Amino acid sequence: MQYTAVRAAIHIASIFALYLSVAMLFPSAVDLYYGNDDWRVFAVSAFFSGGLAAGVALATQGSRPVLSTRFGFILVSLLWFTSCVVGAVPLIASSLDLRVADAFFEAVSAVTSTGSTVLVGLDLMPPGILLWRSLLQWVGGLGVIALGLFILPFLNVGGVSYFKIESTHVEDQPFDRFSIFVRSLISIYVMLTFLCAMAFTFAGMRLFDALNHAMTTLSTGGFSTHDASMSFYNDHPTILWITTIFMFIGGLPFPVLILFLVKGRADALKDPQIRVYATYILLFVILGAIYLQLSTDRSFASAITHSAFNFVSIITTTGFFTEDYGEWGSLGVAAAFLAMFLGGCSGSTAGGIKAYRFLILYELLRNGLRRLVYPNSIQIVRYGDRPVEEDLQRAVVLFLAAFLMVWAAIILLLAATGIDLVTAVTSALTAITNVGPALGTMVGPDDSFASFSDVAKFIMAFAMLLGRLEILSVLVIFTPMFWRR
Amino acid sequence: MQYTAVRAAIHIASIFALYLSVAMLFPSAVDLYYGNDDWRVFAVSAFFSGGLAAGVALATQGSRPVLSTRFGFILVSLLWFTSCVVGAVPLIASSLDLRVADAFFEAVSAVTSTGSTVLVGLDLMPPGILLWRSLLQWVGGLGVIALGLFILPFLNVGGVSYFKIESTHVEDQPFDRFSIFVRSLISIYVMLTFLCAMAFTFAGMRLFDALNHAMTTLSTGGFSTHDASMSFYNDHPTILWITTIFMFIGGLPFPVLILFLVKGRADALKDPQIRVYATYILLFVILGAIYLQLSTDRSFASAITHSAFNFVSIITTTGFFTEDYGEWGSLGVAAAFLAMFLGGCSGSTAGGIKAYRFLILYELLRNGLRRLVYPNSIQIVRYGDRPVEEDLQRAVVLFLAAFLMVWAAIILLLAATGIDLVTAVTSALTAITNVGPALGTMVGPDDSFASFSDVAKFIMAFAMLLGRLEILSVLVIFTPMFWRR
Repeated sequence: MQYTAVRAAIHIASIFALYLSVAMLFPSAVDLYYGNDDWRVFAVSAFFSGGLAAGVALATQGSRPVLSTRFGFILVSLLWFTSCVVGAVPLIASSLDLRVADAFFEAVSAVTSTGSTVLVGLDLMPPGILLWRSLLQWVGGLGVIALGLFILPFLNVGGVSYFKIESTHVEDQPFDRFSIFVRSLISIYVMLTFLCAMAFTFAGMRLFDALNHAMTTLSTGGFSTHDASMSFYNDHPTILWITTIFMFIGGLPFPVLILFLVKGRADALKDPQIRVYATYILLFVILGAIYLQLSTDRSFASAITHSAFNFVSIITTTGFFTEDYGEWGSLGVAAAFLAMFLGGCSGSTAGGIKAYRFLILYELLRNGLRRLVYPNSIQIVRYGDRPVEEDLQRAVVLFLAAFLMVWAAIILLLAATGIDLVTAVTSALTAITNVGPALGTMVGPDDSFASFSDVAKFIMAFAMLLGRLEILSVLVIFTPMFWRR
Repeated sequence: MQYTAVRAAIHIASIFALYLSVAMLFPSAVDLYYGNDDWRVFAVSAFFSGGLAAGVALATQGSRPVLSTRFGFILVSLLWFTSCVVGAVPLIASSLDLRVADAFFEAVSAVTSTGSTVLVGLDLMPPGILLWRSLLQWVGGLGVIALGLFILPFLNVGGVSYFKIESTHVEDQPFDRFSIFVRSLISIYVMLTFLCAMAFTFAGMRLFDALNHAMTTLSTGGFSTHDASMSFYNDHPTILWITTIFMFIGGLPFPVLILFLVKGRADALKDPQIRVYATYILLFVILGAIYLQLSTDRSFASAITHSAFNFVSIITTTGFFTEDYGEWGSLGVAAAFLAMFLGGCSGSTAGGIKAYRFLILYELLRNGLRRLVYPNSIQIVRYGDRPVEEDLQRAVVLFLAAFLMVWAAIILLLAATGIDLVTAVTSALTAITNVGPALGTMVGPDDSFASFSDVAKFIMAFAMLLGRLEILSVLVIFTPMFWRR
């Protein structure tokens, strides 16, 4: 059975690889337009990886997928892995002369919309490469929304099943058919990206930069076309605030966005996870601004702008920065560290532990404490005004346990390559939560991961993939039981 | 009702404070014997704190405790807090001229058998002070065994109720009466301490040092009579191995030790938590030895001795050291960091997350993964050959959530006093798990916490108390609901 499942998964993944290869023609065209020789690289890459993908697709044709959860797990991991490999092809072939580890790291960071980079000298890089990185993040962002909405609920991973069964606004029947919902999702995603790009342009950003940044903002990816990331635009507070707003939107649940924007249903915004998400963002931004104001002598406008930008960037797991918050003093750094855990909403492009899990953990904790005082009382864990079913509670706990275990393992592996404690701890974290920058002197916001060894880069790439696919859906493939019978 | 409960708790705590005051006569006698003037300090402290305690005890007499869980929570926190205050009195009054924050930190670190210190120059310190620190750890160790066996199960905290209902070898009826069990517990504790002290003496340690170290080894406290901690005895591997063995024993569940040593029941050692505890210790020790062997040029005997000593010290949350493992290279430091989470067994003197919780978390994770592959299968979480009841599973999750939340809060608070990230993260951890030393350049194994500000010392003291009392039993007192009605 697993053989058929693997074969069917390879078939679908190769079709997707074919699409992705065709997408290489965009950067090729851009390089051609700007008169950059790398256009050939993309064209040739498109030809070869597209040809290979088509070949594999044909060879595996006719294998009908058994719609089992096993097939689902294999497909998800394979889709993301294949995309990373295809994404790396033009980077390896390009004029940048990247090592395989570097190209793979960069591609994984792109596809998982993490935003960690090993590249230095972005400002002078061929525009095709820059566009390719942004495009991968943008597609990766859309992919992860689809994953969270359509695939993970089916696989019962990460407790998102709750939204399938109880809360999805899909089942509220505002959309008559699935395909309409998918079409709405894609058009909202495209529309918001264009809106963001237009806003950037009006605020004074170059068109090419505006398109790239719009794609990496909405996907909460965080790749920039400048080494300085968004600090390049520190003289344009409007640009910074536009970015902040669209990063925030990227961390919102897209089903809710669709209901609100397409159907005009403002009540959809009352989703409890949005309240939690907005609350912790506000808390960090306001306290951060006060702290910046008190610890440095700057205007309050500057303090609130940079606090909002950087904390929203960390919490939505985007990874842009306007200042090296690794230099924000001990409290600022500790806050940045803790903010890296948070993440956005379920059904968004953001990673991290996510707001709904914190809400449920908080409810579990509150009920547990209440039970200590009133041992015989019956406690119901609530998500908004709905009781949370046992299955979701278990899934949240399962995720937390897996998250901590994987974090510990990645810390050890990174440390084994000679990386110091604070770098290992924060790098492992930033990879699993798909934030982007780490902390410490080596890989802070304004550093790259170029100094990591090849082995460390592969470890980081694996951690990014694990985090992006909600850990458990990858972990399960590594259990012997998965392949039994 | 809470008023009566508080009054009754104060009564019991003051009686205990009276005993503790009387115990000050030991260090007084020792100082007198060694001709040290500080004997007066202890005598006067004993007189005054004893008098005050007796007065309070008389004033609150006649308040019969309502045996509610609320009374239990108030009593536990008050007992430990009072012991810390009484423990600090002679330190404040002593010739050391300690600040209040220092004395309180040291007393809390002693009573919670953490082992972090702010004192430098231990080798030349009045023997009375040294004995007092050791004595507090020893009593604190016995106290925490009693807490884990008799009080926490009654309060349903930390899942220890499981051991009450299902596993306690107490209910297996090997002991006819509670008082016999308590007497066995105390005699085993005393006997093991004497055994340890005798072994130390035979191995060449001075009698006074042997007595002190025996008390702080068995209680997994970790206070030494030397600034160099156990590295003072690096030329006496026998002493190091004796310490390793007795630290390991301190981390074992005392009910099992009693069954084994008093009733000769070897089957009691099959307790699943012991298997988990021994397994992760072996893993760290062996891998640590291999790593030390490969990364430095030393004999394998030296590698295994120091790996065993220091990992057992960290995992049992003792806090002794023979080498600055903060200098063990990146992998060694990362391993030390992760080892700080582990802890010993339930019903032992060790802190940390503890073996039985890891076992249950592992079972939850394994079952969760299995459920992903076989969605309709029914999974039972097992502890050894017994199914784990829902209540205990919930308690473990509750503890983990509270642990992480408190850790995050303490990190932020410490960082707010200007402490850097790695110091704040590891100090908060070492306090909550009652290990002792932290990591980083400021407060590594061979540094003291003297460089912390007074505020940071009070935060650390609070964290140590929280950790020692299994977090939830203190946390619950800070909820408004606890004081309602």
